[in-house]
Amino acid sequence: MKKFGVIGPGAVGSVIAESLLQHGLQVHLLGRNAGEVRIERKGQLAESTLLVEELSRFETTLDYIFITVKGTQLSAVLPFVEKLSHENTVTIICQNGYGQLEQITMPHTYQAVVYISGQKKDQTITHFRDRKLILPENEDTIALHQLVEGSDLDIQISPHYLHDIWFKLLVNLGINSVTALSRNTAIVVTNEKVRNLCESLIKEGMTIAHAEGIHFEKSTVQAIMDIYDGYPPHMGTSMYYDQLNRNPMEIDYIQGFLYRKSQKHHLDTPHVDTVYSLLVASEIR
Amino acid sequence: MKKFGVIGPGAVGSVIAESLLQHGLQVHLLGRNAGEVRIERKGQLAESTLLVEELSRFETTLDYIFITVKGTQLSAVLPFVEKLSHENTVTIICQNGYGQLEQITMPHTYQAVVYISGQKKDQTITHFRDRKLILPENEDTIALHQLVEGSDLDIQISPHYLHDIWFKLLVNLGINSVTALSRNTAIVVTNEKVRNLCESLIKEGMTIAHAEGIHFEKSTVQAIMDIYDGYPPHMGTSMYYDQLNRNPMEIDYIQGFLYRKSQKHHLDTPHVDTVYSLLVASEIR
Repeated sequence: MKKFGVIGPGAVGSVIAESLLQHGLQVHLLGRNAGEVRIERKGQLAESTLLVEELSRFETTLDYIFITVKGTQLSAVLPFVEKLSHENTVTIICQNGYGQLEQITMPHTYQAVVYISGQKKDQTITHFRDRKLILPENEDTIALHQLVEGSDLDIQISPHYLHDIWFKLLVNLGINSVTALSRNTAIVVTNEKVRNLCESLIKEGMTIAHAEGIHFEKSTVQAIMDIYDGYPPHMGTSMYYDQLNRNPMEIDYIQGFLYRKSQKHHLDTPHVDTVYSLLVASEIR
Repeated sequence: MKKFGVIGPGAVGSVIAESLLQHGLQVHLLGRNAGEVRIERKGQLAESTLLVEELSRFETTLDYIFITVKGTQLSAVLPFVEKLSHENTVTIICQNGYGQLEQITMPHTYQAVVYISGQKKDQTITHFRDRKLILPENEDTIALHQLVEGSDLDIQISPHYLHDIWFKLLVNLGINSVTALSRNTAIVVTNEKVRNLCESLIKEGMTIAHAEGIHFEKSTVQAIMDIYDGYPPHMGTSMYYDQLNRNPMEIDYIQGFLYRKSQKHHLDTPHVDTVYSLLVASEIR
């Protein structure tokens, strides 16, 4: 029987581990410390409690590893991932942004576009909606898809995977930048000047995507603005909460990734450059 | 004997009132509430204590009025200024930024470029350095200059006043924007990307100045960066402290003024537009 590991007992990791466990698979949820997490859902009495094992003491070699820690913690967990892998272990990075694979040398490593919405407080996870991972098409992901088929985890093999990952990157670029730098919630997109800024950021992001060979229709700007308009006004983003709590933000794989690609292609992206520089400035200690 | 009023018992107003009083002039320091303020200077034993009178109850007509409240409070004090003025009263606005005069209809009103550095905590002002006001050249300001000549208040009548006011605006544009939006101190200018952003902001500000008929040498960018490099790393700016304390910021007469002039002249100033939009976003409640 294949052995699954999920590193990072946050909302994304716990929901993935829960779905795999309920499907009868052999799953280890791994975290900094051993313990338990509880998953709740609004309006549902049923709760799951999952065992968390300590990553640094774990020794079983795994066939599939989901990395669900934040981008800022990726480099800290990679040595453990290598230790727990054999030559055919498949690793799925479940993080916001893009560019993580550029720093990973392990074969069989892929990044998922993650649609799982939830939050963690103490050891309790509230799962709001979605359990979807979008992956590129290859032998490894097709095999994984077959193993989890029928479970609650919706693994989709996408023929336009790169487009999907860039689309989510563009969504994050606008709303994460304006909320993190204003330390304000999604209410900011009601303001005309902030809308103009979001649109400028998305357009520049599309220019960078284009230089990387990923093409978006002009209507994508409006499609993303429509997504923003669907957010509850008092919703924060992950970067907004990280700013408030003075935690490291996932700048490097969102604005930083786009900034570096812009520089590489000698593009003129002043709005992206400005928000990136200001986010970097926020973290200087 | 000419009667002087100073509205706003903060660092700037208190230091101006102290200088005029010590010169033997008749001066009223006016604030929201009656009380006292104390002025201290590091390394000096001598302290001044000044009486503060309540602006809304004050009835004496004044010949010279210094407005030293923040730009965000200007419109709230203007009705009192009008009430205390006669037809030849000279009003000096001592505030950061520019554009305040565009909303004032009283004659004999001028804006000073203020170089007085201090801070207020409770009712105690610590005066760090400088007591300089730069004013445009005209009959009113020349008469004022003669009245205060020999006092500690250094009133300079400048033949290139507009250049002076725009220079300070450009200084504020860079450092206030990056510190307020990063919620970080002057340490941020040690970072290469933040330096690039400051330089881009200053250059765009110079383009706006040019469209308004004020010309700067290219070397101005380096001159302002040198000023930033002279700041102690842990120094905050006024906008930085306003952000931390969630007080209204003087956006309207610094970034907002430049943004409106840029729009008026159909200029392309994406860095200025971005920081302005993000500052606006910070204040949406």
